[in-house]
Amino acid sequence: MADQLSFPTSLGTSDPTTIRLLGHDLAADLMGSVGFGELAYWLVAGRRPTPGEVRVFEAVLVALADHGFTPTAIAARLTYLSAPESLQGALAAGLLGGGSRFLGVTEDCGRFLADTLSAAGDAAATAAGPGDWDAIALDAVRRARADKRLVPGLGHPVHKERDPRTPVLIRIAEEEGLRGPHLRLFEAIGRVHPQVLGRALPLNGAGVCGAALADLGLPVELLRGFALLARAAGLLGHLAEERRDPIGMDVYLAVDRNAVYQPPES
Amino acid sequence: MADQLSFPTSLGTSDPTTIRLLGHDLAADLMGSVGFGELAYWLVAGRRPTPGEVRVFEAVLVALADHGFTPTAIAARLTYLSAPESLQGALAAGLLGGGSRFLGVTEDCGRFLADTLSAAGDAAATAAGPGDWDAIALDAVRRARADKRLVPGLGHPVHKERDPRTPVLIRIAEEEGLRGPHLRLFEAIGRVHPQVLGRALPLNGAGVCGAALADLGLPVELLRGFALLARAAGLLGHLAEERRDPIGMDVYLAVDRNAVYQPPES
Amino acid sequence: MADQLSFPTSLGTSDPTTIRLLGHDLAADLMGSVGFGELAYWLVAGRRPTPGEVRVFEAVLVALADHGFTPTAIAARLTYLSAPESLQGALAAGLLGGGSRFLGVTEDCGRFLADTLSAAGDAAATAAGPGDWDAIALDAVRRARADKRLVPGLGHPVHKERDPRTPVLIRIAEEEGLRGPHLRLFEAIGRVHPQVLGRALPLNGAGVCGAALADLGLPVELLRGFALLARAAGLLGHLAEERRDPIGMDVYLAVDRNAVYQPPES
Amino acid sequence: MADQLSFPTSLGTSDPTTIRLLGHDLAADLMGSVGFGELAYWLVAGRRPTPGEVRVFEAVLVALADHGFTPTAIAARLTYLSAPESLQGALAAGLLGGGSRFLGVTEDCGRFLADTLSAAGDAAATAAGPGDWDAIALDAVRRARADKRLVPGLGHPVHKERDPRTPVLIRIAEEEGLRGPHLRLFEAIGRVHPQVLGRALPLNGAGVCGAALADLGLPVELLRGFALLARAAGLLGHLAEERRDPIGMDVYLAVDRNAVYQPPES
Repeated sequence: MADQLSFPTSLGTSDPTTIRLLGHDLAADLMGSVGFGELAYWLVAGRRPTPGEVRVFEAVLVALADHGFTPTAIAARLTYLSAPESLQGALAAGLLGGGSRFLGVTEDCGRFLADTLSAAGDAAATAAGPGDWDAIALDAVRRARADKRLVPGLGHPVHKERDPRTPVLIRIAEEEGLRGPHLRLFEAIGRVHPQVLGRALPLNGAGVCGAALADLGLPVELLRGFALLARAAGLLGHLAEERRDPIGMDVYLAVDRNAVYQPPES
Repeated sequence: MADQLSFPTSLGTSDPTTIRLLGHDLAADLMGSVGFGELAYWLVAGRRPTPGEVRVFEAVLVALADHGFTPTAIAARLTYLSAPESLQGALAAGLLGGGSRFLGVTEDCGRFLADTLSAAGDAAATAAGPGDWDAIALDAVRRARADKRLVPGLGHPVHKERDPRTPVLIRIAEEEGLRGPHLRLFEAIGRVHPQVLGRALPLNGAGVCGAALADLGLPVELLRGFALLARAAGLLGHLAEERRDPIGMDVYLAVDRNAVYQPPES
Repeated sequence: MADQLSFPTSLGTSDPTTIRLLGHDLAADLMGSVGFGELAYWLVAGRRPTPGEVRVFEAVLVALADHGFTPTAIAARLTYLSAPESLQGALAAGLLGGGSRFLGVTEDCGRFLADTLSAAGDAAATAAGPGDWDAIALDAVRRARADKRLVPGLGHPVHKERDPRTPVLIRIAEEEGLRGPHLRLFEAIGRVHPQVLGRALPLNGAGVCGAALADLGLPVELLRGFALLARAAGLLGHLAEERRDPIGMDVYLAVDRNAVYQPPES
Repeated sequence: MADQLSFPTSLGTSDPTTIRLLGHDLAADLMGSVGFGELAYWLVAGRRPTPGEVRVFEAVLVALADHGFTPTAIAARLTYLSAPESLQGALAAGLLGGGSRFLGVTEDCGRFLADTLSAAGDAAATAAGPGDWDAIALDAVRRARADKRLVPGLGHPVHKERDPRTPVLIRIAEEEGLRGPHLRLFEAIGRVHPQVLGRALPLNGAGVCGAALADLGLPVELLRGFALLARAAGLLGHLAEERRDPIGMDVYLAVDRNAVYQPPES
């Protein structure tokens, strides 16, 4: 087996005079000509996005980059406090919180919409107006309710009435001709869910980002990856700020000084 | 102390109706208007970059995003093989290799140049042409040699004669009016080091990226962070490819099947 | 809210003269008197284990500590190659592969057994001999089969007939009076599954470890944690060996030199 | 090159019927017979420790396992809050803080003592009593002072007069005949440093652990690894407690609700 080792890749390769990335000459064709968001899209999708796709994609990354003192931002700052020589460790610690609860909604929502569209089949393929989408959405919300599953993308602990990112991202997608079936279905869920759930919840920003990314044709199994990329930029911002104006020690002391010993139960 | 808890930040804050980032309304002012690379720069530097700065900055990120099957890319793929449910874990594992050896040159080079400029003082401030820069560079390379320290940014295991990224990034910086003292000093090191080291080494891509980032005014202590951000995009590309066309299992088997037991020495 | 901050813990606290851990004086009562495995058990379970429980527990940790060149061990070595200044990063990278595929069986198996026992209710509580356990096991395997779920703990890619750890751990548990319902049910699964699956698979070592840990009363949601603790010791062994006798660079080159560029499909 | 792939290891190997670890039959010879701490020592040192060595080693691990709500414990709990499905991610995030500041003293101290002994040469090899050690210590502290370097292992933010772990670990080492040159030199530093520094600082617990590990013959470049292993057990305790009695959300809210927006300076 050893003598037939072969590892295929469509990403980067190099020889003494040239570096190639995605089949192009990195220095001659990509540097200075391709934006960073554009490259990230290309690397994952395997195809170069159009300018409109890049605009929607970067709007999503901007929307997800930072939400202030999230648990992940605090974890990154505390790790930097403990090991300032390892910036990569602090960044990694922050990203490790990018799981089901605080960063997972984007992927969960994209997947829910894609699964619903797939199950709806022809009804989705031929949907011609809000009424058609509402019917598909109503059915999906009812089934989720019956299975006691949450509908991802509904509700927000702070933006209880309206998440300001949602209408803006829908508008940008519309401007670029990229308001596709995932976004339309998501909007329909926003209209019909009160009928089933008995109260009106806002379509949240993480959810609309998942819908927009799915409309861009990006693989729904990897949508969390874009949330992580966006968050990597936000975490660098936090680590830069932690250098200039640290809070990590104060967070640590606020917890440690208010620790109360409690005997184990058993 | 608990009653005066206060954690300052210039990054993100939100209230029920608005999300603010860097002092701006995220939805109204930033989404769709600010690029992702632009935002990353802004988050770290605390100021919005000019279009020229963004172009140089994104050229750097594109240059550093992927170098094929690096140890970090392989580590990320093996982690994904073992724990496919945790994309964040695979990404974090890949970034954790972003340390001194494979990703550190960018930061090391920026720091070496900044330290040299700082030590040169007036000579750097008034340098008017290649001859002036060569004198400063010659002195810096001689001191590094005397202290048995490596000059960061010189040499490359594959691009032994010329790293194709170097002249391109210098040209882009020149086009944008951003070929500043760090790049000029770096170029001078490229001209004079053979006099001291006795052989000509290429100025490598990681080094020129560090010089360009330093000329952008970004903090040299955080330059590694930009290499990590760039690499996050490259690693997502690897993980997407690992889903489509996996190599992780083959890498594992190539190692495990060729394991040879060797008795401990003691 | 800030004035009522209070963070309860049963673990460690300290004041200028004393360090307390789990309600005991660390220096006076624990150091030199409590073993490390014993302490790990105590920390998670919240109660001090008996000597017999410690013996079974440490046998599990020893069983899981190292399996040679696993993907996680290779990932840790490659990360150490790239960032040798950050031992914690290399260790973390290795642990991040401790997910569903390569380290998850222990937890999955413990959980499957616990769920089965819980569902069996009285039948499990009054099971008096192998026949009773076989009936419960047969039902559980049949239901898993009907739901197209795998029965965790069955089969091994290398030990196709018999995993040598399994009978040894059962014997140790028996010697210590700790061969409880989870292990008995696991053994029964080993006896009856061929009737349902049509072929005989070995009870694997990771699975028997999960069964033994569950019989120790450790929380099944955290069983993966013990596999990770065991693996932390194994990974330190790999990193120590990587210092003495490195293979990381050879692994990297074996992959990189056998990379083959393949055009993206789209 | 591919046809000569060969990866040597002294750790684990397996074939269909046997698993070998460190040259022994894992199931027949190690499980149930070797303790977990003993195995960790063996894996790193490449030789089986004596019972006395195991007792000192485990006393060190017990001493370092948990220090309450450290930054690393808080980071692990916040990560678990965000991504509860990935226990390995939370554990890894906690370990990533095991760097220079909060966990580095053990390694720094062992290294400082080893370097001092190496530099002292014959004087250390023939040191016969406290007076001899004091002379070596005095010289080392003076040189550190002259170079404006800290002497690792001196001082503690909480235990300002005496760290209770220090005399206990020295006593245990003495009982086992393992109070060697590193510990003796460390004790001498405790006696003489006030002459140079002008005030008396306690020998701290992390430092004495480094001295004891170095006296056990463990490689000083990897001492941080043992602190990380010990801390892995402590972090599992924190994560188990976070499941039972969570504080992560309260920490997050205490920070987020007390965030104060501050305009960027530039």
